Amino acid sequence: MSVKRIDHIAIVVSNLDEATTLYRDVLGLPVAHTEHIAEQEVIVACLPAGDSEIELLQPVNETSGVARYLAKNGPGIHHICLEVEDIEQSLTDLKAAGMQLINEQPTTGAGGKRVAFVHPKSAHGVLIELYEAAR
Amino acid sequence: MSVKRIDHIAIVVSNLDEATTLYRDVLGLPVAHTEHIAEQEVIVACLPAGDSEIELLQPVNETSGVARYLAKNGPGIHHICLEVEDIEQSLTDLKAAGMQLINEQPTTGAGGKRVAFVHPKSAHGVLIELYEAAR
Repeated sequence: MSVKRIDHIAIVVSNLDEATTLYRDVLGLPVAHTEHIAEQEVIVACLPAGDSEIELLQPVNETSGVARYLAKNGPGIHHICLEVEDIEQSLTDLKAAGMQLINEQPTTGAGGKRVAFVHPKSAHGVLIELYEAAR
Repeated sequence: MSVKRIDHIAIVVSNLDEATTLYRDVLGLPVAHTEHIAEQEVIVACLPAGDSEIELLQPVNETSGVARYLAKNGPGIHHICLEVEDIEQSLTDLKAAGMQLINEQPTTGAGGKRVAFVHPKSAHGVLIELYEAAR
């Protein structure tokens, strides 16, 4: 498989406005986009930095996966997303290497992207999202 | 202050060989560089991905800061490093915004880089390293 770049780093926070103040007003990154992702029950702010983005996530309720992560671990880096050339081939290669996949097939993420998650247990504690750009 | 890009994502692992096997042989990223950083008591493998890098860190003893982090938290993402235009100005701006700094002045990191860390307590749980490229 072939990783092209780090698409984004996702940071879960309890207060998106405060986190945006830090990353936009103090660190000076632009906010390119904000979105309510209904299926993940989060609001997101995307701040491009070089050819990657910082994504700030705030859960919108207390029951979503991200909300439970926040309650258990506190705010911090939630996952990294790697852009790959071919997501189906990548999932096949990861499975052949014995990696535990959260999504055996690509699912639809923010903005209609095709994504899949690899379980942190088989990736040295890192939740890895794979993303293939639209062809 | 002005952030130019994400320089690297640092992942602390207990076994650098196994982690390198995942990121190089399975994910397909090249290993550009490995280094023993004596002052941080770690060995590091740097794998470029787009205009950023994945840095895999393994502590070389059980007493370093990274080793204690690993013992407490398990393997996972340790910090993100942002390249800034002017590190002194960035530290001044962060301090003026009430951010807690680990390094009030730049210190010397891997490869002689000028770096400084911001405390995760004031950055929504994220340990942020700032880095200024040699001028």
